Amino acid sequence: MTPWPVHGGRLSELARLFPAAPTPWIDLSTGINPHAHPLVRLDPSLMQRLPDPLEEQALRFAAAEAYGVSPDHVLVGAGTQMLIGLLPVFLQRFFTPSVIRILGPTYSGHDAAWREAGFAIGTVPYEAAPAMPVRHMVSVVCSPNNPTGHRLTLGEIASLAESHARLGGMIVVDEAFADFCPESAASLLPHPGLVICRSFGKAYGLAGVRIGFLLGSHPVLHAMRAAMGPWPVSTPACHIGRDALCDRDWRMAMAPRLEREMAALRQVVTRAGLDFVGGTSLFSLFRSPQARKLWEMLAQAGLLVRRFEWDETLLRFGLPPDEASLRRLSRALG
Amino acid sequence: MTPWPVHGGRLSELARLFPAAPTPWIDLSTGINPHAHPLVRLDPSLMQRLPDPLEEQALRFAAAEAYGVSPDHVLVGAGTQMLIGLLPVFLQRFFTPSVIRILGPTYSGHDAAWREAGFAIGTVPYEAAPAMPVRHMVSVVCSPNNPTGHRLTLGEIASLAESHARLGGMIVVDEAFADFCPESAASLLPHPGLVICRSFGKAYGLAGVRIGFLLGSHPVLHAMRAAMGPWPVSTPACHIGRDALCDRDWRMAMAPRLEREMAALRQVVTRAGLDFVGGTSLFSLFRSPQARKLWEMLAQAGLLVRRFEWDETLLRFGLPPDEASLRRLSRALG
Repeated sequence: MTPWPVHGGRLSELARLFPAAPTPWIDLSTGINPHAHPLVRLDPSLMQRLPDPLEEQALRFAAAEAYGVSPDHVLVGAGTQMLIGLLPVFLQRFFTPSVIRILGPTYSGHDAAWREAGFAIGTVPYEAAPAMPVRHMVSVVCSPNNPTGHRLTLGEIASLAESHARLGGMIVVDEAFADFCPESAASLLPHPGLVICRSFGKAYGLAGVRIGFLLGSHPVLHAMRAAMGPWPVSTPACHIGRDALCDRDWRMAMAPRLEREMAALRQVVTRAGLDFVGGTSLFSLFRSPQARKLWEMLAQAGLLVRRFEWDETLLRFGLPPDEASLRRLSRALG
Repeated sequence: MTPWPVHGGRLSELARLFPAAPTPWIDLSTGINPHAHPLVRLDPSLMQRLPDPLEEQALRFAAAEAYGVSPDHVLVGAGTQMLIGLLPVFLQRFFTPSVIRILGPTYSGHDAAWREAGFAIGTVPYEAAPAMPVRHMVSVVCSPNNPTGHRLTLGEIASLAESHARLGGMIVVDEAFADFCPESAASLLPHPGLVICRSFGKAYGLAGVRIGFLLGSHPVLHAMRAAMGPWPVSTPACHIGRDALCDRDWRMAMAPRLEREMAALRQVVTRAGLDFVGGTSLFSLFRSPQARKLWEMLAQAGLLVRRFEWDETLLRFGLPPDEASLRRLSRALG
């Protein structure tokens, strides 16, 4: 077997491993919306000058409005990944986490971040979430979960935030795929025991712009902001992000469109004999005893999907960008 | 007196404070090259996908080539400011700095970053640099210095790096304005006691893109990279940065052009009775007992220059973008 990319989106590596694959590659290995929010016309001079504080503020205000929180509770960074990586380092200024509990299997970035900061991780099954925390514990939960699509209810998150806060700990809720969901844990803010991760690039199809957010009232967000300084994202990013986050009409129209297209994808993949496990409107997880062979077969056909080291019977599919790509996938699945 | 912007480039604030000033404002408050490196034509799809590892690598390799170091010794971030802010936090994983010594007066970002990380700062006169360090000391020096233009020689930096390393400490050399200088402390790398900050936006006139670097062989750079993750800068930034850093011809042609234009600026400002203190080809510092009044007068004329809280007789001027702006400055200085 060929080694596989750990994250999605490493087409250069794939093209090297499968030189005979037809091009262009179709990258279904991410959960990025293939229908990007239309880009505003950007004056090239935006590249030349630093973001004005009012421009960064406009981005923050737009995020606050879109997520339903106070602008004071929004931390902007150059992508959520960076904020996830910095959080374990900065949190130690406020308390020393005794136990890190990650509900899994889930996005590997959280595990990697806490390990890199020197912590041992306890991964517990997603369903074990409501278990009682211990003193100074940090729990991490992705809701909806990537890749399984599992969700915690608002009530479960509220109860976890409460029990963690009472014991001087915190729950980190990664809502990277919550943009088209009807409810968000952001409605529980402000809360001393709750920090929420929100991604910009996935829902708006603009992952290359590098914008991400932490939401919360915990002082760790202020410490991170102070260290990252007044210009954490590019000047074009301030404008692109603000325009997209303000566009409630686009979001409202995009949600049913993604649902429709994901239903069509699920139909194509299940027809090929794979079992649907779960997902969101931006990805679906399937199971097949032939998953390894299928992955390789798809790669040879120039289609990249996501496989997982921890379960070789699973494959995750993102949305194809158009009908033609879906047909190409359908043919490749034979 | 009106309150003044702490950093350069806050035109929105100025426009509010001086509503009668003629527009457009001319911003001479930064040290950003007004002649930006010509932007490559960017495919909008770069905004939609994450940077491929090869794209981030290409940026890193271009920086390594431009700065004369190994690519392994290059850390990329979303602007140098962020890296300056994160360094004090991450360095504590390797040793607890006993004393932070900043050679000043200098760029306030370093002082702010160490204070934010909980350290007390000793600011010592720039000339006191060669004083012997103590155990686990960190010294910070900007060379060329902003705003005075002071420089340490390579020999002085080598000797400081050596003496700091011997006692388990480190010297941080900020070379934000070294791109058009004949020599760089990067030639001293690898070195266990030396970390160098390099800025992209100033020399290439592309501050809005947010690219910055730390150079060094110290493991703190690996720790920072691990925490910041695989996508610390935007996909367009990877391409824009690589193209500009590879463009040696542009740099070679830009250096004498900036020198000529800075000489013309110095002539205009000294003719108005201010004394030249020092600078680089991207800014000049002047002294006048009337500096506060002059700053206000220039602002009323729609020209923003930099003043300093710690010495109200100083003004720093960046390069005007064209002849017309220089004439407008000349008229405003009366």
